[in-house]
Amino acid sequence: MIVVLSAQGDTTDDLIAKAEEINLNASRREMDMLLATGEQISVALCAMALEALGLPCVSLTASQAGIYTTDLHSDARIRRIAPDRIQAELDARRIVIVTGFQGVDRRGDITTLGRGGSDTSAVALAAAFSADLCQIFTDVDGVYTTDPRLVPNARKLQEITYDEMLELASQGAQVLHNRSVELAKKFKVNLEVLSSLERKPGTKVKEVAKMEKTNIAGVAKDTSIARVAVMGVRHSPGVAFQVFDLMGRNNINVDVILQSIGREDSKDITFTIHKKDLREVEDILNSHKDALKFDHIESDEHIGKVSIVGAGLMSNSGVAAKMFEALYEAGINIQMINTSEIRVSVLLDEEDVNRAVKAIHAKFFDDI
Amino acid sequence: MIVVLSAQGDTTDDLIAKAEEINLNASRREMDMLLATGEQISVALCAMALEALGLPCVSLTASQAGIYTTDLHSDARIRRIAPDRIQAELDARRIVIVTGFQGVDRRGDITTLGRGGSDTSAVALAAAFSADLCQIFTDVDGVYTTDPRLVPNARKLQEITYDEMLELASQGAQVLHNRSVELAKKFKVNLEVLSSLERKPGTKVKEVAKMEKTNIAGVAKDTSIARVAVMGVRHSPGVAFQVFDLMGRNNINVDVILQSIGREDSKDITFTIHKKDLREVEDILNSHKDALKFDHIESDEHIGKVSIVGAGLMSNSGVAAKMFEALYEAGINIQMINTSEIRVSVLLDEEDVNRAVKAIHAKFFDDI
Repeated sequence: MIVVLSAQGDTTDDLIAKAEEINLNASRREMDMLLATGEQISVALCAMALEALGLPCVSLTASQAGIYTTDLHSDARIRRIAPDRIQAELDARRIVIVTGFQGVDRRGDITTLGRGGSDTSAVALAAAFSADLCQIFTDVDGVYTTDPRLVPNARKLQEITYDEMLELASQGAQVLHNRSVELAKKFKVNLEVLSSLERKPGTKVKEVAKMEKTNIAGVAKDTSIARVAVMGVRHSPGVAFQVFDLMGRNNINVDVILQSIGREDSKDITFTIHKKDLREVEDILNSHKDALKFDHIESDEHIGKVSIVGAGLMSNSGVAAKMFEALYEAGINIQMINTSEIRVSVLLDEEDVNRAVKAIHAKFFDDI
Repeated sequence: MIVVLSAQGDTTDDLIAKAEEINLNASRREMDMLLATGEQISVALCAMALEALGLPCVSLTASQAGIYTTDLHSDARIRRIAPDRIQAELDARRIVIVTGFQGVDRRGDITTLGRGGSDTSAVALAAAFSADLCQIFTDVDGVYTTDPRLVPNARKLQEITYDEMLELASQGAQVLHNRSVELAKKFKVNLEVLSSLERKPGTKVKEVAKMEKTNIAGVAKDTSIARVAVMGVRHSPGVAFQVFDLMGRNNINVDVILQSIGREDSKDITFTIHKKDLREVEDILNSHKDALKFDHIESDEHIGKVSIVGAGLMSNSGVAAKMFEALYEAGINIQMINTSEIRVSVLLDEEDVNRAVKAIHAKFFDDI
């Protein structure tokens, strides 16, 4: 057994606060050096707890465990795992307790993996040691058909495919970070999401769930988005590319994109971004107004997105229709629609979002 | 410049308390893993502080700095320092900030150096990189002729030899740990003890201080000792060896030893130990009473030791006489006397110790 741990409770936040007292612009290398102590404390204390139970064990830092990463501090990527030390400990029948969220670069400097880091560490180790199962213990007890705080009769899924999990996560379900799911998919690591507080089965994430599913996996919502419309763009090739190239170079994540066909010599380009990026996006676009030749910008922060996710959803045309029917019956107006192979998303007024989730969830799950 | 740091304030004690909540008998390996985070936090925060001042710098763990030790966790010894990484950083004109008190064993496991560890790390690095000077910043501003809290006109020494420093430290002056001084002596590292709070010269510790000194370096006291007398030991060869072999095997440090010549067929063996070891020593001796064939044990916790230290002291017979004269004038009774090349120690009633220090210090320093 290999155990991967995050830092305890507020440790990371406390360390960041300490750093900010000293230097608001500390280098990422030194920040990684500092933050890595959080997980190191966790693994040492966990080893002591297992020792107290008489269980043979050993704690390892990422450096000792051989987790080599790129040298992009605070957002490093795992390059490879040198198995020697962990394998030796496993052979000696010890439980191996490894610091999550961190690695070491070629020079021996400590790196951290950024958001979702500890889950990613766990999946990478599961892949490297061909584990039968990688269990992710979290503050929820599994993946639900929708947010149980909003819809009390939301159901816990017994299993879900990697692709469904990826779509659910990117559409707002904050159970697992996409990065760890992508890695699990790539190396076919069987995942299970389960509660760290209760002993009961969670949700299994695997390549193929039930062979023929008749229903969607879940309904997700996201109200952290804003919509930006670039109005009156000249109808010249490459303008859309220019806009999204600008966003990419400024590290702005763009989600739903819609390009109207509109009038003969001009068109509108509409897209959604994270709310926090709105001012920056407006500034970027306005400072390139001459080059992009648009009329004006319209933006809206009061929108939300509701999505249904399910393997094989788009090959069953009745599914999308059922979603639209639920929204129609609830009298909710759809602003934009966006689809992928296993997902249908609609953009709505922010105030309609919760009602939409309830209506759609009832339509798909109440009669089962 | 290479900077070596300890953990901040109460960090180490807080970590130990956390560990003890979980496991009172945690393995030393895991304890080292835990405690090493204290210095890692220090070096990262210090690097951030230097960055804020615009100074190029880099923090390094002992593992990154190449400080290799034995694998005796919690009390490891430095075996060698691999200079590559530190040298590369120095060549790049960066200030190198290294975690004190810790190292890494051949396997890559984190070790700690035990008491005086950070000073030892600093001296070892100074030796490895042939530093001109190793400055130890402490909570005192130098080495004094005696404890200034007891004798207000105690004087700060400008310089002192390694040997004098070693004797003063082992006789109770808690400025530098002997281990770091021994290492400094071995590699001829010039030390300076100075205050971390005030900017003023401290005390230099070097191989040879002033050529011809006319006075002692200082007066030290130690009231943490107890005296044990093993009474009525049969006069057979090897009994003394057996007693002190027993102490050694139980990790009991024995200091002053006196063996009386006494009666024809039996003798007494008297020695001093640390107060905290007294019960254990009595138990050990009593459980070997048959083998050692002694009559009974007498012990006294209410004793203290006062020492004068100075290079060349024993080759100047007037010096010891001056000490005894001071004690005689103060009406203080001497229980035992013990000497080395550069030290004279006397055992006294505990209640006489402070008076003895004042009298001796006055005798040697008041008329200068």
